[in-house]
Order: sequence, then C-alpha cells, then structure tokens
Amino acid sequence: MNLTGHQLIGPRESGAASETFAARNPAADEDLSPLFHEAALAEIDEAAKLAAGAFDAFRRISPGVRADFLEAIAEETLALGDELLERAAAETAHPLARCAAERERVLVHTRQFAAWIREGSWTDARIDHGDPERQPLPKPDVRSLLEPVGPVAVFGASNFPIAISVLGTDTVSAFAAGCPVVVKAHPAHPGTSEIAARAVRKAIVRTGMPEGIFSMVHGRSHEVGARLVAHPRIAAAAFTGSLAGGRALFEVANSRPCPIPFYAEMGSVNPVFLLPGALRARAEGIAKGFVGALTAGVGQFCTNPGLVLGMEGEDWSRFRSLAGTGVAAYDPATMLHAGIHGAYAAGIAERLGRSGLELVGQSTAAAGRGEAAAYLFATTQEGLLADPTLYEELFGPVSTLVTCAGPEEFVEVAERLEGSLSASVHGTEEDLAEHRDLVEVLRRKVGRLIFNGYPVGLEICHSIHHGGPYPATTHAHFTSIGTRAIHRFARPVCYQDWPDSLLPPQLQESNPLGILRLVDGERRR
Amino acid sequence: MNLTGHQLIGPRESGAASETFAARNPAADEDLSPLFHEAALAEIDEAAKLAAGAFDAFRRISPGVRADFLEAIAEETLALGDELLERAAAETAHPLARCAAERERVLVHTRQFAAWIREGSWTDARIDHGDPERQPLPKPDVRSLLEPVGPVAVFGASNFPIAISVLGTDTVSAFAAGCPVVVKAHPAHPGTSEIAARAVRKAIVRTGMPEGIFSMVHGRSHEVGARLVAHPRIAAAAFTGSLAGGRALFEVANSRPCPIPFYAEMGSVNPVFLLPGALRARAEGIAKGFVGALTAGVGQFCTNPGLVLGMEGEDWSRFRSLAGTGVAAYDPATMLHAGIHGAYAAGIAERLGRSGLELVGQSTAAAGRGEAAAYLFATTQEGLLADPTLYEELFGPVSTLVTCAGPEEFVEVAERLEGSLSASVHGTEEDLAEHRDLVEVLRRKVGRLIFNGYPVGLEICHSIHHGGPYPATTHAHFTSIGTRAIHRFARPVCYQDWPDSLLPPQLQESNPLGILRLVDGERRR
Repeated sequence: MNLTGHQLIGPRESGAASETFAARNPAADEDLSPLFHEAALAEIDEAAKLAAGAFDAFRRISPGVRADFLEAIAEETLALGDELLERAAAETAHPLARCAAERERVLVHTRQFAAWIREGSWTDARIDHGDPERQPLPKPDVRSLLEPVGPVAVFGASNFPIAISVLGTDTVSAFAAGCPVVVKAHPAHPGTSEIAARAVRKAIVRTGMPEGIFSMVHGRSHEVGARLVAHPRIAAAAFTGSLAGGRALFEVANSRPCPIPFYAEMGSVNPVFLLPGALRARAEGIAKGFVGALTAGVGQFCTNPGLVLGMEGEDWSRFRSLAGTGVAAYDPATMLHAGIHGAYAAGIAERLGRSGLELVGQSTAAAGRGEAAAYLFATTQEGLLADPTLYEELFGPVSTLVTCAGPEEFVEVAERLEGSLSASVHGTEEDLAEHRDLVEVLRRKVGRLIFNGYPVGLEICHSIHHGGPYPATTHAHFTSIGTRAIHRFARPVCYQDWPDSLLPPQLQESNPLGILRLVDGERRR
Repeated sequence: MNLTGHQLIGPRESGAASETFAARNPAADEDLSPLFHEAALAEIDEAAKLAAGAFDAFRRISPGVRADFLEAIAEETLALGDELLERAAAETAHPLARCAAERERVLVHTRQFAAWIREGSWTDARIDHGDPERQPLPKPDVRSLLEPVGPVAVFGASNFPIAISVLGTDTVSAFAAGCPVVVKAHPAHPGTSEIAARAVRKAIVRTGMPEGIFSMVHGRSHEVGARLVAHPRIAAAAFTGSLAGGRALFEVANSRPCPIPFYAEMGSVNPVFLLPGALRARAEGIAKGFVGALTAGVGQFCTNPGLVLGMEGEDWSRFRSLAGTGVAAYDPATMLHAGIHGAYAAGIAERLGRSGLELVGQSTAAAGRGEAAAYLFATTQEGLLADPTLYEELFGPVSTLVTCAGPEEFVEVAERLEGSLSASVHGTEEDLAEHRDLVEVLRRKVGRLIFNGYPVGLEICHSIHHGGPYPATTHAHFTSIGTRAIHRFARPVCYQDWPDSLLPPQLQESNPLGILRLVDGERRR
C-alpha cells in the first residue's frame, strides 16, 4: 500500500496543511516515510460535518446490515496481510507476534459486536402499555430504547497500535451503536493508522455504508485533538492514554458551550495484594507470574502491576528476593516512543534518588538508547503513606513492593489508593475470607478484582470491565473493552403514544426483531 | 412536628452556624418560622464522612431488606399526614391538591424502586465461564455486575417540594442502588424538607439501616452546595434546577482533583409541532390542551411547552387566536419564590420590548405581587432564527408561537434547537409519516417524543425518560425519573477467577436471587 500521509475525510483525501511530521522507528532510531500532514482546522471541521451529515442515514440502517459492516471490517483487516503487522512493529518496536495477537483481538471484538447488535437486546427496549380508562388520568403508552448519540471522536492508544487504535473497541462499538467516527490518529503510529483506516474505508464501500461515517485526521500537536473534541458536531469522545492528556481533553469537553461526555481510560497503578497462605504455598510461582506481568510489552500496559503488597515475614522476604532476581534477568527493550521513554527515565532517576525507597532489583543488562530496564523498588507501609506519589502510575516495567505489618495495614493502604482499573489478590480461599475488609475497600476502588492472577491480558467478553474510578477513567460507569463499551455511545429516547408503524422496530408491538424487552415490568421476548 | 431548622446529620442534629434564613410564604408574602441554620463547613464534612463510613455496611444489606427500607419510607411519608402537604403549600403557593398529588408520586416511585431491586435484574449480572484448557492461553472466569458508587449528594427542585426533593427519585434511586445520601435542602422549602427528612430518619431506625446513610444540610448560599459537591467523600451528585445553577455545580464537580459525575436536569424549551392534519381536525382541542399545559403549575414545569410551531394558513391562524383567548382567560397565580418571579418578570419585560415579537395573548386579569400572568408571543421562522434567545427556556407560563412556511422550515427550526427534555408532535398518522425528516431531527435533539399530547405530567414507569441532550441535562444517557434513574448511581465491578462463595450473590453460580443474567452470551434466569 502506498501511504499518503493525508487526512482521510469520508471518501476523499486531503493534505492541506504545510506542517508535517514523520513517523519514527524507535528500535532503529530513524524516521519512516512518508511525511504525515498535520490536520488543518478546515479539515477537522469537514470531517466532523461529514460525520454529522451521515448520522441520520447510518442510524436508520438495520442492525443486521450494520453487523455485516462490522464483519466486513474484520475481513478487510485480515486482508491487509502482513503490511499492517510490519508497519505496526516498525512504529512501536513491538515484536511481530505481538502485532499479530493485536490483530486477533480486533477480529474477536469486531465479530463480537456484530453478534451483539444482531442479537439486539442491548438496546434495553422497554414498553409500558397505556390505559385510556385509568382514573384520575388516562395512562399514556410509553416506550423507550437506546439510540446512538451522534458522531464520536476516537483517540487511539500508543501502546496498542492495532487493537486499541483505529480498529479498537472505541471505533467498533461506536459503529455498532450507529455512530459515525472521526479518529484522531496517534502520532506515534500514523502509518499503521492509515493502513487500518483504509480497511475501514473498504468495508464502508463494500457494504454500502454512508461514506461520511468515517474519517481520520493526523496531528502531533495537542491542538488537533482539542479542536476535534471542541467541535460542535462531535457528540462524544473516547480516549485511551495518559492522565495528563486525558484530563486536558476532559476539560475541553466539559467547558464547551454544550459539554459532551469524554470517556478516557488513563491507566492506573493496579495493586497486587499477596496474602500469607499464597506466599507460603507458592512464592516462586507468584514471583515468576508477577515479573512476567510487570515486563510484558516492556511494562507498557494500562494494567501493569505497579504496587505489590505483602506482610512481613519469611515468605514475603523470599518473594522479594525472587522477584528481584526475576527483574534482574529481564533484558531491556525498546519503548514505544521517545516521549514515553523520557518520562520513564526521569521517573526512574527520581525514584533512585529518593530516600526511603530501596532498590531490590534492576535489569542486569544495560539499557541501550530508547530502551527500558526493569526496576523493582521497596518500601514500608509508612514509607508509602508518607509519599503519595508512589500511588501514581509510572508507565513502564517498574513496580514497588510494600511491606505491611498486618491485615490492618493492608486495609489502610487500600483506603488511600486512587481509583484503579484492577486489583489482584493472591491467596487461598481461606485467606480471602479472612481479608474481607480489604476486599470491601477494593470493591470501592477498582473496576476489576482478580483472584490468583495478574491484570494484564484482558479477556474480551461480555463480562469484562476495563474501567474504574478516577484517575483510571473519567467516568467509572463505562468500559472501553467488552460489549458494555457500546453504552458510551447510546442514550435513551422515549416515545409516548407514538403510532406503532412509525416506532423503531425494537419498540413495535409485534417485536419484529425478536429482542428481549421489558414489557409492563416483565422481561419478554 | 416541631421544626428545628437544624442540619440533620445521620442520627443527630446540629445548628452550629450563626447564620440563618427564613422560609417564606410567597402567597402571603411573609416569613415562616422557624429560622433555618446555614450549614457550616464542618457540618457538611461530617455528613459526607458519616455517609462514607456507612457505605460498606449499607451496600452489604440484601436487596430485599433495602426494599423493605424503601417501603418504610413510603409508609412514614404517608404517616406524616397533612402537615407535609400544608407546609409544602405554604412554602410554594401550590394548592393542597397538587401537594397531595406530589405525595402520591413519592409513594409510586418509592414502591416501584422497592419492587425493582427485589426483582434484581437491573444489576446487569454477567458471567463468562473460564476454560483452563483453552489454547494458546487459558480462559479466565469473568463475572460482573453493577455495584453502588458511594455517597450521593442530592439537590431538590424548587418546583416539586415533595416529589422532586428530599423524597424524590434522586434520593430513592440512590438508596435503591445502595448509596448513602446527603441532601442539600432547597432554601425555598426548608420546612417541607425537614418534615420529609424526618420520615426518612424514621424509616432508617425502623428497618435498622446504618444511621449514617442519610443527612440533610440547609443553605441559602451557593457555597453550601458547592462545598458538598467538592467534598472528597461524595461520589456522585444529582440536581434538578436552573441551567445557571446546574452548570456552576457541574463545573465544581469536573474541576475536583477527582472529578465525579454530576447529573443535572436543567429544564428545556420543549417544542410542540402542530402538523396540518391535526390543526384542520381539532384546532380547538389542541389549543385548549396547550393552554392547560402552558399554565399548569403556573408554568413552573421543566416540561413546559415554550415553543409552538405551525404552518401558515387558516387553521394555524385559528389556533393562534384560540390559544391567545385561552391565555387571556388564565388568572395570574403566585410563583414559587421571589427569585423565579423576578426572572420571569424581567424576561417578560424584555420580550415585550423586543421588535419582531408580537403579543398574541396575555392574562386579562392583572398580576398581583409575586404572581405570574400568562403570555403568548408570536414570530415567524425568520424571526426565530434571527433571535436564538427564543430557543431558551423562560421559566413560567409563557410560550412563543412560530409561523413556518412549510415542512422545510420545520426541519430548519428543529436543527437549530438546543437539547430538550421533550418534543411533541400533533398530527394524523399520515402527517407524521410525511414529516419523517422532522422526526429524525427531533430524535437527535430530545429525550422524549410525544404524539398528540403535551409533555407535562410525566408517567412514572420503567420506560419513561426524563432527560435529554444538553442543556436539558449534563449527561443525556441518564434520567432523573423512572427506574432507569438507578443507573446514575451504580457502576460495573468485575470479578475474575473469584471463589464462588465469596462472590456477590448476583454472580454466584447457583443464582440464589433468581435474577436474569447474561451467561456465556445467553440471557438466563
């Protein structure tokens, strides 16, 4: 494929602005061709207006045909062949196998949403029949269902160039809901984004979707994203990235004359609690699993375990030592881009200089240019409470072990946690029952509780929740992975005494789509 | 009942601050006793901390027992007898019968939420079974459900002192979800609020709920509300009131170090479209219904029809004349309080002085002190487009008739509408089918579409939606009336490989609560 570096605006291309930037191969430390054009204000405006113009037509398309479109996206993605994987690997330093696994995730979530909208019950259709004879006032016939909100702005994540970017759950769930999408391509993988976007365009043409439902704009400056979120025709936005970036755009969304929901997933510290029974039984296995989770993807997961808590004693000391050895054996690897590497290096330098923080493990091999070595620090519960910055995520293969004196200290640490995507607890069932207080606190603090496992490697399914209280996300009710993600892009619309034939099919008396509905308070198909 | 004017903080009372204010009888134009104490910062802090402290215990209470608590609130409300109605009437100038109707709404929604949480399927429990043999990676067991978010701040509305205040859907749905509540009492009906709050306290004691789950603070200054929303222990807030007040608190909520969802219902213009067939067949009935809806409750409904659109011609002229006559016959009545009356009077004065706005009807009887006369203005489609302030709500019995030249002008007007709680369309079914384009636009703009009816008088049911795009609300996904309102106060929590006996009962394999669940993608009980 010949990459153009242009904005893809509905069916056409545009490279109006003279400002350009290059994609970079972080492993080779060199620029990649071609140059990408920074989107001009007029191009962003055109993309948003095209999306708004295509919305009514797209929404009217039946769920089954929209599902065909999603399946076509999966097929066209697969048809891109190795080019997608190779460009993603070049732009991110991810191994090819990882890129292939990401593509597999795209196929899974795209097909899952296709099936989900074919099934159709997600629309939460409700019917309360009227009663014209009711006293003292007639009862109206009231029906409602979830309808799409309008054009959605999508910001891909740098760490998943295929699975959480142009082809990610954000784009796919917005399409599934019936919303047009304008993607702001991540400047760290603009070529991968262009390749992926061309698959979406092919699927649009092949299945006859309105052409305005998809655009993609490029930008290295924060301004492009801010302008997109501020655009009056954009109805919602989804973002995966840093806390600073997410919060800044959240503020843009909220300070619009007409605020819109801004769903940001911004990562978290993902604490791991090691209960005594588990450490006694299998400190080796836990240490091995932990080091694997810590260093997976060069530590560049939102679900990276950044804080590990254990109770002082022999088993904990053994775990510390094993984990330190495991970290030492980790060979430094190239990070996604210079910005992330710079922040990681600065964070590590700052931690190394901090008193009260012990270094218990560090990659033995030296890190080359752009590479991250793994680090493992340790402190006590008092040390942690005295230094709240340790509760914050440092993106990369680094974690802090925290020694607690007893169960009360676990609870105290948990109470001070910021919101997190996940918390993991290792223990026997007896351990878990004995630490109910800890679990109760964690239920308030996180989106996902994991028993005897690690948070990395999200299962894509109906039950998964990839969200959590701030700063994990900007709105803890919503997830960015799994079928519940569609709820970010649909809102209830209610029809009162509306003629049956003019109702959306989901609400018509005969239930032509055969979906599960709440009828006069009873769930029925 | 002896009113104290104190803050009710969990089980105790507090009147620490020296600053006080009086409730006022707007009809008699005189103060009512006793004086109410402005909440001090320490009192707000104590209420929020008590709520947070009671949260874990409250959440653990089974849904059935929480439902008993809700039913006890209904019983204790009824047991208050006439005192509640009389005080509400005195503080708001509402007729006693209206106050009784509001109490009836409280009984209905409280019992509806009790039944809803007993049924339990609202928790959206989902199970995806694991598969340890799956290749290349074992599949974890993943389960999730909606859990309560934590303490909720509730701001009552001035226009519904009983039904949308201390005992409103906000408080009841928060309790139903398992969230403690801190009410900021509306300063226009603090006595009604205290009486109602005492019913809640009785229900708490009677059913053995944790005492910290309910507090109420008073304040005439905006500061009390802002401090409550800014309090770190408050997890969400619900508000019904003015756009200015709602937006200000929305900004407080968003600019917290840890932002929280702020669900504000701020009213809207609620356009009414009169299609030709309807006007031809029954202009009299429509005019009568319209004037009734416009002047109901002295025009002080969020769903007041503020804009009426028709196509030029004889039938529309007849409707205009009939509506003008109807408005003239309306006897001015006392508004809720001086603030609302002042804003209404200023808005009317401004409209009377505006060129291009014709006065087609006005109450014949003169308005006394604190009273609102009804007004009906008229303009053309061009006049409306030239003056966007006409799209904004003016709270009170006033509306604007807009003459359009044809269906395209309807669509053009609809496209310029701000978000609205509702839109009403009067017509024959043929009319409606012919104006599909109009309906498509309205689906994007409003929360509820009404055929041959008026938006006032919300039916309390599962299907109702009382929400809509901004400025109708701050988040169009959520409603403040009806059983869907509970979703403002619950978020998904996911359990991965969690031991069955330690899961919430909704997720246990045996489904002990017998709720509808999504199991491996299939809905089952």
